[in-house]
Amino acid sequence: MQTPPPPFPDLDRDASEPIYRQLYWRFREAIANGLLRPGERVPAARALARELGLARGTIDTAYSLLTCEGYLQARGQAGTVVAPDIGSNPLPASRSPQASPAISHTAQPLPFQLGVPALDAFPKKLWAQIGARCVRSTCPQDMANPSAYGLQALRTALASYLQVSRGISCVPEQVFITAGYQDSLALITHALLKPGDRVLIEDPGYPPTRQLLQHLQIQTVALAVDHEGMRLPAAHTRAQAAVVTPAHQSPLCVSLSLPRRLELLAWANRQQAWIIEDDYDGEYRYISRPLPALKSLDREGRVIYSGTFSKVLFPGLRLAYVVVPQARIERFEHASRNVRSSCPQLTQAIVASFMTQGHFARHILRMRKLYGERRAFTRTGLQNVLGEHVRIDSSPGGMHLILRLGGQQSDVELARRMHKAGLFAEALSEWSHLGEKPSGLLLGFANIDSQASAEALGRQILALMRDAPPVTRSG
Amino acid sequence: MQTPPPPFPDLDRDASEPIYRQLYWRFREAIANGLLRPGERVPAARALARELGLARGTIDTAYSLLTCEGYLQARGQAGTVVAPDIGSNPLPASRSPQASPAISHTAQPLPFQLGVPALDAFPKKLWAQIGARCVRSTCPQDMANPSAYGLQALRTALASYLQVSRGISCVPEQVFITAGYQDSLALITHALLKPGDRVLIEDPGYPPTRQLLQHLQIQTVALAVDHEGMRLPAAHTRAQAAVVTPAHQSPLCVSLSLPRRLELLAWANRQQAWIIEDDYDGEYRYISRPLPALKSLDREGRVIYSGTFSKVLFPGLRLAYVVVPQARIERFEHASRNVRSSCPQLTQAIVASFMTQGHFARHILRMRKLYGERRAFTRTGLQNVLGEHVRIDSSPGGMHLILRLGGQQSDVELARRMHKAGLFAEALSEWSHLGEKPSGLLLGFANIDSQASAEALGRQILALMRDAPPVTRSG
Repeated sequence: MQTPPPPFPDLDRDASEPIYRQLYWRFREAIANGLLRPGERVPAARALARELGLARGTIDTAYSLLTCEGYLQARGQAGTVVAPDIGSNPLPASRSPQASPAISHTAQPLPFQLGVPALDAFPKKLWAQIGARCVRSTCPQDMANPSAYGLQALRTALASYLQVSRGISCVPEQVFITAGYQDSLALITHALLKPGDRVLIEDPGYPPTRQLLQHLQIQTVALAVDHEGMRLPAAHTRAQAAVVTPAHQSPLCVSLSLPRRLELLAWANRQQAWIIEDDYDGEYRYISRPLPALKSLDREGRVIYSGTFSKVLFPGLRLAYVVVPQARIERFEHASRNVRSSCPQLTQAIVASFMTQGHFARHILRMRKLYGERRAFTRTGLQNVLGEHVRIDSSPGGMHLILRLGGQQSDVELARRMHKAGLFAEALSEWSHLGEKPSGLLLGFANIDSQASAEALGRQILALMRDAPPVTRSG
Repeated sequence: MQTPPPPFPDLDRDASEPIYRQLYWRFREAIANGLLRPGERVPAARALARELGLARGTIDTAYSLLTCEGYLQARGQAGTVVAPDIGSNPLPASRSPQASPAISHTAQPLPFQLGVPALDAFPKKLWAQIGARCVRSTCPQDMANPSAYGLQALRTALASYLQVSRGISCVPEQVFITAGYQDSLALITHALLKPGDRVLIEDPGYPPTRQLLQHLQIQTVALAVDHEGMRLPAAHTRAQAAVVTPAHQSPLCVSLSLPRRLELLAWANRQQAWIIEDDYDGEYRYISRPLPALKSLDREGRVIYSGTFSKVLFPGLRLAYVVVPQARIERFEHASRNVRSSCPQLTQAIVASFMTQGHFARHILRMRKLYGERRAFTRTGLQNVLGEHVRIDSSPGGMHLILRLGGQQSDVELARRMHKAGLFAEALSEWSHLGEKPSGLLLGFANIDSQASAEALGRQILALMRDAPPVTRSG
């Protein structure tokens, strides 16, 4: 006996939200309202597709979303049912991201989302094969507490990769696996700094760096960024460390020039200070070969290199790493054992297999090409529509564009309107603390898949700009 | 063409190390010494078993260990080869745990290892099925940054489970997923305490609690534990929080009595202090039903409950959680976003599926029965052999036994000798800071699978005791 398909009178084929996503919400609402009861069977995907005149893949995608989130349960031959245990914990059905930040965090990335790689181009099938193999071959020692330093196979694979790809010579013992950039920065702070220490940071700069350091009782000192990257500290500037993004400055995307790299190293050697190199997307450079890491110039062991799998694989993995000077291995081992939780064995094992089988290097090459294309047509598409309203920075790499806004437009207000309309944007002025704060939007392009999409999104931005009241400048 | 099997003249069928483990080391040594070269095919498991007169399963286990650690690669029909990329990064072949702490952390758990559940009784096949399904159904939003608070499906499943199993009423928004106990304690500290605050801890007590709090600039104040659990603070004792293990005190295994539970809550209400309930193994009680959590008595929202999957599933998952009072949800959301990395989507999704499909509750019931049996025969086995040399505490629950040693025996020295002999033990006196430090061994029994094993291990301990010089008491 099959339940008749729930009616979906309000599917909107012209809306910016994809149909599968609308379907997903209809099901969630039906479950929350009790229209679909726990344990109840939902229509077969094939039947529903026929009924609604949609592609089978659209229904499959919606069902897979609902299954992933625990609303539906696939029962093989017995069909798909509403999760039987969902009744005792009615789930909120709100679709407003504001209503529940916890849920909005796990939702589908919005158009222009920053820091999210091209999810449509990820080799999902290959990944699933490797993942399934790793989960099947779990052995007893994989189930015990993993090393606080990271899975040896992954540390070894990373040491080889970094040599070839980023010019960094290191042994596996110098590589520490962490749960993301913030965890890396916390580990470095615990290993090398103490409360009250002074750390130089870039301005504008990635906000979590400042927030985390301040939370850990570290004083931050902002240095302005110009077309050659972070301006150098004066020779006598006293600080225990500097956090820099030399490959593509975050957010301005400029590269730290070679003279400044050498001068910064000289400063660190003189001051016995640490340089924390945040190489969050160094692999993605489109006008020439990727630049070698600053770490590759470090002769005196003053640079701690911080890398991540969030951009080159995906952020949901929660895996990053630091490479530490040989003379500091013990301090990092001590800090790792005492103040951190280690990372799950499974995700580390999957990434290690992906790397040692050669897929990792191939994936990066493919993505570099794809992002070069997406960046070009997103830029053209937005420029065609937005014309004189914006100036789009040309930059050699990275995963986002910077749209500079005219003086009349508040970036904070426009970003707020875009969020409300279901688009992602960050306001450049909110990444700045020094002097005249530049007005601009930071837009991720990695998931924009055609110039037509970029133009359609550009038209949405244009409409939001026109509705906006002129900015009142303060300070 | 098949490589002849490497000769294994030194396999020792009477040694305490299992044969598969000896085989594993022989292969590692052969690879490290270049006897087996990268890409070289190793003998088929069936052929090697015949050659050596061993069970096929023994060879399979050794190969699976080697494959998991990246030494071998299975190539399906093409057989198994030495990993082709292993040559450029020769791996250390030392078998001494002291030689490389990074590697010893990932090695097979030792006999008596603390905190490791019965890995042989884990439903590996079921887990692998669910895991493979989760990894295959990864959707784009699973690949984006996971919620800093935890996967909604897992928070929901935990809220239901805690109600039934631990008597804790909560909504999913009160549940925050973390990467382990230390991450939980760090989150609680960041959300509710500030540097310089005073926190009461148990003595003897779980060493990482003291270490982490002190690292986070929190003052710890030790309170002695007696047969009713932690002694209560005086009515006027000023502190911002207390960390307790009410179900089975860690390490003494006594339960916090009901009068003390109520008095502790009254103290917290008066002082506006927080009680951090570390319920690390509350599910495992063998002489009666598990006690409800202290949190279930908390009417004023002063208790933060800390649970973990390390004992009821396995530590390699790196998943734990805290349940926070409703009035403090926002503070925990803020701290989660600002100072922590979230947990990988995949491990959370696997656990959520395992729970919602009903396997979790069944697994705990099965393990409670198994641990009851293993505890009984480990105790009998050790008592038979060690007789008057030790007194074994009788305790209602937990996953370890306490062997009290006579006055002539130093627990630190004996534990050191046991480690050297490949056995795990922790010295009770090292968990204590107050007054006369009790001498005893903490021994995990969850992986001891027969009374005969317990007796064999007991004989090893006895021999080590006899070789030990008498203790010199200091202070």
